Amino acid sequence: MKLPKPTLWKGALALCLTFLVCASNPAATAAEATDSSWKQPEVTEMGRGVWRVRFGQPEKFTPDAVRELPPKWEGVAQLPEPGKLPFAPADLRCRVTSARTVLYVPCDEPEDQIYGFGLDPAAYEQKGLRKYLSVCAAVMEKTGASHGPVPFWLSTRGYGVYVDTARVPFVHVARLSARSAVNTEGAAGDLKTDVAALYAARPAAGKAEVVVEIPGNTSGVDVYLFAGPTPREAVQRYNLFSGGGCLPPMWGLGMKYRAFTGADEATVTNLARALRDRQIPCDMLGLEPGWQSRAYSCSLVWDKKRFPSHETVVADLNRQGFKINLWEHAYINPESPLFAPLKPRSGDFLVWGGLVVDFADPQAFQLFADYHGKNFIDQGIAGFKADECDNQPLTDCTPFNFPYSSIFPSGIDGEQMIQLYGYYYQRSIQAAFRARNMRTWGDVRATTALAAPLPFNLYSDAYQFDQYLRQLVNASFTGLLWSPEVRDASSYDDLLNRLALSSFAAQMCVNVWFMPHPIWEQYDHDKNNKHQLLPETDQERIATQLREIVNFRYRLLPYLYAAFQQYHDTGLPPVRSPLLDFPEDRELRKVDNEFLFGSRLLVAPFVSAESAREVYLPKGCNWIEFKTGKLYAGGTKFTVKGKAGEAPLFVRENTLLPWAEPVQRVGPDTVFNVTMKVFGSKPEPCLLIEDDGESYRYEQGAQNRLTLTWAEGQGAVAKTGNFAGSRYRIQRWEPVEIHP
Amino acid sequence: MKLPKPTLWKGALALCLTFLVCASNPAATAAEATDSSWKQPEVTEMGRGVWRVRFGQPEKFTPDAVRELPPKWEGVAQLPEPGKLPFAPADLRCRVTSARTVLYVPCDEPEDQIYGFGLDPAAYEQKGLRKYLSVCAAVMEKTGASHGPVPFWLSTRGYGVYVDTARVPFVHVARLSARSAVNTEGAAGDLKTDVAALYAARPAAGKAEVVVEIPGNTSGVDVYLFAGPTPREAVQRYNLFSGGGCLPPMWGLGMKYRAFTGADEATVTNLARALRDRQIPCDMLGLEPGWQSRAYSCSLVWDKKRFPSHETVVADLNRQGFKINLWEHAYINPESPLFAPLKPRSGDFLVWGGLVVDFADPQAFQLFADYHGKNFIDQGIAGFKADECDNQPLTDCTPFNFPYSSIFPSGIDGEQMIQLYGYYYQRSIQAAFRARNMRTWGDVRATTALAAPLPFNLYSDAYQFDQYLRQLVNASFTGLLWSPEVRDASSYDDLLNRLALSSFAAQMCVNVWFMPHPIWEQYDHDKNNKHQLLPETDQERIATQLREIVNFRYRLLPYLYAAFQQYHDTGLPPVRSPLLDFPEDRELRKVDNEFLFGSRLLVAPFVSAESAREVYLPKGCNWIEFKTGKLYAGGTKFTVKGKAGEAPLFVRENTLLPWAEPVQRVGPDTVFNVTMKVFGSKPEPCLLIEDDGESYRYEQGAQNRLTLTWAEGQGAVAKTGNFAGSRYRIQRWEPVEIHP
Repeated sequence: MKLPKPTLWKGALALCLTFLVCASNPAATAAEATDSSWKQPEVTEMGRGVWRVRFGQPEKFTPDAVRELPPKWEGVAQLPEPGKLPFAPADLRCRVTSARTVLYVPCDEPEDQIYGFGLDPAAYEQKGLRKYLSVCAAVMEKTGASHGPVPFWLSTRGYGVYVDTARVPFVHVARLSARSAVNTEGAAGDLKTDVAALYAARPAAGKAEVVVEIPGNTSGVDVYLFAGPTPREAVQRYNLFSGGGCLPPMWGLGMKYRAFTGADEATVTNLARALRDRQIPCDMLGLEPGWQSRAYSCSLVWDKKRFPSHETVVADLNRQGFKINLWEHAYINPESPLFAPLKPRSGDFLVWGGLVVDFADPQAFQLFADYHGKNFIDQGIAGFKADECDNQPLTDCTPFNFPYSSIFPSGIDGEQMIQLYGYYYQRSIQAAFRARNMRTWGDVRATTALAAPLPFNLYSDAYQFDQYLRQLVNASFTGLLWSPEVRDASSYDDLLNRLALSSFAAQMCVNVWFMPHPIWEQYDHDKNNKHQLLPETDQERIATQLREIVNFRYRLLPYLYAAFQQYHDTGLPPVRSPLLDFPEDRELRKVDNEFLFGSRLLVAPFVSAESAREVYLPKGCNWIEFKTGKLYAGGTKFTVKGKAGEAPLFVRENTLLPWAEPVQRVGPDTVFNVTMKVFGSKPEPCLLIEDDGESYRYEQGAQNRLTLTWAEGQGAVAKTGNFAGSRYRIQRWEPVEIHP
Repeated sequence: MKLPKPTLWKGALALCLTFLVCASNPAATAAEATDSSWKQPEVTEMGRGVWRVRFGQPEKFTPDAVRELPPKWEGVAQLPEPGKLPFAPADLRCRVTSARTVLYVPCDEPEDQIYGFGLDPAAYEQKGLRKYLSVCAAVMEKTGASHGPVPFWLSTRGYGVYVDTARVPFVHVARLSARSAVNTEGAAGDLKTDVAALYAARPAAGKAEVVVEIPGNTSGVDVYLFAGPTPREAVQRYNLFSGGGCLPPMWGLGMKYRAFTGADEATVTNLARALRDRQIPCDMLGLEPGWQSRAYSCSLVWDKKRFPSHETVVADLNRQGFKINLWEHAYINPESPLFAPLKPRSGDFLVWGGLVVDFADPQAFQLFADYHGKNFIDQGIAGFKADECDNQPLTDCTPFNFPYSSIFPSGIDGEQMIQLYGYYYQRSIQAAFRARNMRTWGDVRATTALAAPLPFNLYSDAYQFDQYLRQLVNASFTGLLWSPEVRDASSYDDLLNRLALSSFAAQMCVNVWFMPHPIWEQYDHDKNNKHQLLPETDQERIATQLREIVNFRYRLLPYLYAAFQQYHDTGLPPVRSPLLDFPEDRELRKVDNEFLFGSRLLVAPFVSAESAREVYLPKGCNWIEFKTGKLYAGGTKFTVKGKAGEAPLFVRENTLLPWAEPVQRVGPDTVFNVTMKVFGSKPEPCLLIEDDGESYRYEQGAQNRLTLTWAEGQGAVAKTGNFAGSRYRIQRWEPVEIHP
């Protein structure tokens, strides 16, 4: 696929039919008709089931304006017929004042629920909440401030709404009572003598709306509506509008192990050897701040003391099949070679004494990309991790970030730059890899809307287990990927459950940046730092369990890779809320601790150090417990027990599951030996994707699609595509014994 | 004094000399000269040592635009010669964009410290912090979000800065590092393996500024500068610019006891009797929500069941010398007689189903005032308490408030209305009392800048002892009064210390709205609600201690009343940080738990349930421990021990302290029997104020000033003024024995 430049596809919009709804908005009141702050909607159907509603003049810097890829309309065309929106696009109302833009979106079905707003660590059901969609390094209750705050929401009525802004909106999600809906019944009742009770005693809201306030936007905004018929297709439309999901390099689906920040080249070499010796599969090694001569802010130069022979070491590690990922943040230390060229192309305030890169300036963007290409990618580096590209919560007065009022030569506003910094960073790094026809797989601590095409995973310093899990589920509503990193653990069981959760995420990552010894030698942070290691038998036990958990993931890599291809083509997230696949099941609306891994597996991880939990199986099909073969009817709720480290896993009945022999790493010519596990008598066909797994040659057709089917006790493989190699050896078809 | 209308004194400004500094701002860079978003300062000297710096076009709704009183320039004229500002007013810089106004105020002396920003519960020294000056019902760390957030700050260099905005500013207090101050030394050093350590590792800021961001202000702003020579005179200038401090009714300085929310008229009558029976002085009884037929939102109508004979009960209580204060909030329930007239004059969203009053509409303002006048003040009500006129913190998604985007018929923005709601409320209530030539004394949960002339005390639901104390001290920097209410206690000693703190505040208030029985019968909230009362001996013990604490306050009422007169005339707060009186004493910069009560007494309360603490006595004079007569040199730090309920109290050497016999309540003709305690051989003269204590007749001269002096063992009283009555009977002069 050849990618038109954004300017091209934008020009093409002129061909679309635009409906300018002049003073005919049916929802407009008399006051609105005479008040010029109320803007008339200009409705444009952008593609099947995707509308743009423009109010006034959108700002220059928005996620849409700086997007990575054009919409993938060819994917949208393949989706089911759009459902009918419960309101007309022209029913949206918008007011633009000298202080802010305010958008009013109908949402008056009391039975509906709302999801989305990005990574949100603390809230799942969004109705009744006030969101504050700031990029944020820490959890701020249920505001939705997060590493990936996105003004996109999804209704169970089967539609999505995206507000294209790079400012920090407040969103009142069906929370306010309009004066026009005044309730003649007061709310007194019993007199309360408790503050919480008093404040909870509110009359029911009348005709509710989602009210989006965008302070500082004083010109106007574009709103996009995405039709269903169900929330799933609305998400797909949004992700395809974003440009489609990323297709990671196949090695990116393996395990990433991030080493101690103070590691020198000997330590890293030893770590690599230990992983291979212990046969713990691993594709990626991450180096934390210590690889640099200066960090906080960053020199982006190898440290001469710790890495005197970094060229040799990187080459050696590459030969052993390790991809190297470098930590950094985009605050440029005066010692960096990038400092002088970027100084005139940076913000007027420093962060940790380093320059804030004006990524909105194409030359700064390219300088940053080229520096990484020439100095690192061309030297064997396969990925990067951008730290601290987010913001501290309001309540944390002291640490980093640049102010909202920062001035950049490109004209972007500081607030917009903070919201877009991680996104711009990803685009710049991606440009360097793309120019080399290499896929990358990176880490980033903040992003924004329309991020689905960018091959980066969000991560966090916050470390609460339930929030890690909720973020994983929420991420799937908004085209985000979440890496629930394992850093340390409060107990052995907590460690195992964290590893198990991570192994079912889009990226599996063990990040022990603050512990000098490998995690299997000591998972307690303090003891690890004091070199108080576990007895060798315990180390062996942990390494074994880690190996088993990672092996399990590697067995599913072919399956997961195909799920990512589907993300790429159809916008369906590879790891996602079951609500997307079972929209009719109301019981699922509250379930924020289970998720689908691909279309056929449901994961219900043990939380914290637990080894039992309640599981709800979605209604609409039967489910088979992977470990036992036991059959359950959908719609069942029960307690599942097991051992820490075993994430309870359920397979949809009638699944063909490719089950590979684990490998130690995924090279461009790795061939997977696959057993096709047959769950049920009439399994759905199974897709596998075959390509080099690391370049963009698949865009020119160098990719095969294998369709595997099973009928009447017989398996068959149909192959299409022009990739010359072969990545899968189907060794056998194995019907799984199922029992009630 | 006759008060000119605000429009008059504003017209008078045209007479002032205005300096328009055209493109000659010495701090302006080349870029600023060519970028039209940078505004030129228009500097006007408003009065001696008070400058206005105007940038662009200020907004229509600001505290200055809706102020209660004109500046008291005659008071300013009496202040010491203004000190020299460390920068010229024209050195301020300001940028106005389509998103926000940003102000840059020089602040580049590393040795200086900054104070202020209103009530701030959590921070005292402000340098290095990011403030978020939202009215807020709960504590948000050190952001300064509070019941009284004010963009006024004070430098130890002896000047104050006030930014006249009703929006929510972010203030970076000498916290940012400008790119122009880039440090060539990186910040790496040792590699950190701890998040907190990493984030703390910042290079020193370069040339620091206070950067004030005002999102949503897209036109311009007025900034006021107040000269010293010391911070004290800067505060005085600010308070006089606000219109001067309020002069409460004398009864307002007594004790306020707020009854149980569910109390009926019998309960209140019994409570009043119990207070008199136990001889606990009390001037004010507060009725909480239960007096109304509807609360949350409010009907503003007496409840027929609980108060069927409210006219008789109020009249009876008034006869017993109790002033009645009614709780309310300004969200008008559909059942209220005010609902119909206010509906077209209210915001487009409801709070608790009630109307949000458009106080910026003069007719709505007057309707609210008149309703209170006719229905309550004329029926014997002496004060009101406005609850929930603030806002919930961002992190609290669910409860009250109206959104920033609320639309009001007057044209005020929702954000401005939220910030000004408490202030407008006070003005409306004050208008009703003023029209009746009555002083009032009220409670309000939010206010803003320029509030000094309004006779209201801030209070809070948050209940942390150290924050209560810090708010009391911080309030004095910004013309606010804080009432550290006593609600319940975690222990007997905690109760006593809370009572002691409250007894030295501008208002003493016991507010047991959530406990059905008097606090001396049970101070534990849960037990009180379960009617598990203390044994009678314990009740007697508590009542006795309460009586002693309140008596102590009543003994000091003549002294406190004179301190308020000084607040009124000269802007010097009656209860204040010792830093204001001892600006040279650097040791005081961190002391946020001691305060001056009037000019002669220093209070160092025991915190929580403690009965010992460290005290620091300011350098510059000697101090005498009130309880023991022990003499201490200023500049001494030591541990003071005592009993809970005894706030350690120190008297400046050479003080004449009026020490009255306690009374049960303060009527218009109450005469205080006073002993003049003489501390030291050469006491300063002492001022006492004599008037009716409840009307504004003092403005026409019906007030006497008594100057009491002591020399050579002989006391003398000089009296000026035209008040016919007499309020003080000086019974004796009593030299206090002082020993080292």
